[in-house]
Amino acid sequence: MRPIVGITMGDPSGIGPEVLLKALSDKSLYEICRPVVFGDAGVLLRTRGRPADLRIREIDHPREALGTFGQVEIIPLSSLPDEATFPGRPGIQGGKAMVQYILRAVESALEREIEAVVTCPISKALMQKAGYDFEGHTPLIAQLTRTENYVMMLAGESLRVSLVTVHCALKDVPALLDIEAVYKTIAITGAALEQDFGIPSPRLAVAALNPHGGEAGLFGREESEIILPAVNKARTRGIRAEGPYPPDTLFYKARLERFDAVVAMYHDQGLIPLKLLHFSDAVNVTLGLPIIRTSVDHGTAYDIAGKDMADPSSLKAALRMAVEMARHREARRRRNRDPLATD
Amino acid sequence: MRPIVGITMGDPSGIGPEVLLKALSDKSLYEICRPVVFGDAGVLLRTRGRPADLRIREIDHPREALGTFGQVEIIPLSSLPDEATFPGRPGIQGGKAMVQYILRAVESALEREIEAVVTCPISKALMQKAGYDFEGHTPLIAQLTRTENYVMMLAGESLRVSLVTVHCALKDVPALLDIEAVYKTIAITGAALEQDFGIPSPRLAVAALNPHGGEAGLFGREESEIILPAVNKARTRGIRAEGPYPPDTLFYKARLERFDAVVAMYHDQGLIPLKLLHFSDAVNVTLGLPIIRTSVDHGTAYDIAGKDMADPSSLKAALRMAVEMARHREARRRRNRDPLATD
Repeated sequence: MRPIVGITMGDPSGIGPEVLLKALSDKSLYEICRPVVFGDAGVLLRTRGRPADLRIREIDHPREALGTFGQVEIIPLSSLPDEATFPGRPGIQGGKAMVQYILRAVESALEREIEAVVTCPISKALMQKAGYDFEGHTPLIAQLTRTENYVMMLAGESLRVSLVTVHCALKDVPALLDIEAVYKTIAITGAALEQDFGIPSPRLAVAALNPHGGEAGLFGREESEIILPAVNKARTRGIRAEGPYPPDTLFYKARLERFDAVVAMYHDQGLIPLKLLHFSDAVNVTLGLPIIRTSVDHGTAYDIAGKDMADPSSLKAALRMAVEMARHREARRRRNRDPLATD
Repeated sequence: MRPIVGITMGDPSGIGPEVLLKALSDKSLYEICRPVVFGDAGVLLRTRGRPADLRIREIDHPREALGTFGQVEIIPLSSLPDEATFPGRPGIQGGKAMVQYILRAVESALEREIEAVVTCPISKALMQKAGYDFEGHTPLIAQLTRTENYVMMLAGESLRVSLVTVHCALKDVPALLDIEAVYKTIAITGAALEQDFGIPSPRLAVAALNPHGGEAGLFGREESEIILPAVNKARTRGIRAEGPYPPDTLFYKARLERFDAVVAMYHDQGLIPLKLLHFSDAVNVTLGLPIIRTSVDHGTAYDIAGKDMADPSSLKAALRMAVEMARHREARRRRNRDPLATD
C-alpha cells in the first residue's frame, strides 16, 4: 500500500504552490505514495506554471485519497481571495492560512491519518505577524507534537548534516555548546539514521568548532572540553561517533570514507558544504519527532514567486525521503508486532 | 626567459622533500620555469620515492640555474645527519635548518635573484621550538619583507578565497572584525587579482558573518555595522565588491556567477568550501607582499612522511601559480618602463 503523505502548501504568496504543482506533475512520485495537499484549491488553480492537464480534486479527509496521477488531491483549509495571495506580496490572511495547513497536517499525522508531513516554505516574519510566536516551522511542530529534543538535519545524496545550533548569531555559538547539547545531537541523529533511514550502526563524523580543531588548545578549547567528552559519551553508549575532526577537511573526508552523517556545531559549518554540493535538491528533515516531517530546504523566494521560475527538486527530494522514512517506520512496526518478520 | 623560482624544502622530516622531488619530475614545469631548491641535498638523496633518474646538482647561486629537466638544482643550506631527519620525527636541527631555507629564499627574492618563492610545509610548533617565535611561514615572511598589511588567499581552479581572520578561536572572530580589517582584505585582494593575476576590475563577493546574513539583525548585526560599510568604502574607491551575502549559498553563487574571489570572514568559512572543491590541488598565496610567495596548502603530514604516499598536486599548482604571477609582474614592469608596450 502506498503511504499517504501530507504536503502543506506554505505561504500562498511564496513559491510553495508552484513547486508543489510542479512536483506533483512527476508521475514517479505517485508510484511510491499518495500525496495529499493541505492548502487552498483556489490558489493552486491560479498558480502560474500549473501544468495544463493537472486537475485539482478537493477531498474532506486523507482516507479518501486515491493517489491517481494527474489529479492533485487537496484538503481545502482556506478560500483566500485573489488580492490576499498575490505572488511575492505576503499578507496576514495568507499568513494565518499557512499556519492552519501546518496545524491540520500535523494533527493528521499524529492521528495516523497520514504517514508523513512534507512542508512547503513559510516566512518566519509573516508567521509572527499572523500571531504565532515561533521561530519557524520546526519549533511549532515540536510543540504540537510535544517534542523537547529534536535535531535539524539537511540531507543530500552525498552528504547529511545535523546541526547542534541553528539560527543564532555566530558570536553566540560557543556559549550555546555544552556536552549535553552535542551529545543529544549525536544520539538523536544516530537513532534516526538507524530507525528512520534503515542504516544499521550508522557512523557519525563530529566536527570541531575551531580551525584545525583548535590546534591542541592554541586557538580554542571547546574540542577537548565539550566535543570530545560528548563523542566519548556517545561511544560508551554504543554510537559509532568519531571526532572532533578539523572542519575544513572533514566534509571531504566524510564523503571519501562514507560517513553516514556529519554533526556540525553551527549553521554555516554544515550548510556551506551542503549547499555547495546540493544547491537545489537538499532536504530539511526534523529528527526526533514522533511523526515524520521533511521539508524543502529553501525559503518562500518572494522575488521569483509567480514567475514560473521555481525549481521543484528540493520538494521532490523531500517527498521521496518522507516515503523512505515511512517505509522504515512501518517495517519496524511490523517487526515489533512479529519478531520473526523480516523487511 | 623562464623565471627562476625558489622552492624552500620545508621541514626535512615532513613530506616536503618527497613532494618536491615528485613535483620536479614533471617535465612540463621545466617548460615554464627554472626551479631552484633551498634545502639539503643529502636529505633529497635519502628521500624515499625519489624517481630513479632524477639527479641532484648543488649550485652556489640562483644565477647558475640551468633549469634542465632531470636535474634538481639546489642551494645547499644544511648537511643534516641521517638521524636528525627521520621522516615523521621532527627535531630541533631540522627546525633550525628549515627556517634558514626560508630566510635565504626570501632574501634572494628581495634581491631579485629569484622571481618567486614557493614554500613546502613546516610545522609551527617546531619553528617555535627552534627559537623563532612566529605563527608560521606567513608572519615570518611579512616581517622579513617589512610588510604590515597582507592577506592569506587559498586558490583552486574554480574558487579563490581571501580570509579576513585566520588562525584564531571561532569565539574570537567577531571581536577581530572591524570596517578597516574587512576593507583592507577587500582592497589587497582586489589589487593583487588585478596586478598579479592579470584580472582587470576583478569582482569580489564578500561573505556575511552570520547565518542568512543575520536575517535583518535578528541574529547578529555585523553585516550592517561592519561588513556593509567596508564593502561600500571599497566601492567608492572603485573596487567591484558586492555583499555581504549569506554564507551558505555564497560559494555556489560565486562559482555560478564567476566571481573572481570570495572574501571570507573566518578560516573555516572559506576553507570548508575550498577544500571540498580542491582537496589536493589548492594553493596558499600571500597577497600584498613585495615579493611573490605561494605555498602548498597542506601541512608536514608526519603520519605519512617517508612512505612514498604524498601527493605533489598542491606543490605543482603552487609552482604554476607563482610563475603566472611572476609573468604578470614582469609584464607590468615592462609597461611601466614603456607605456606603449603591450603584454
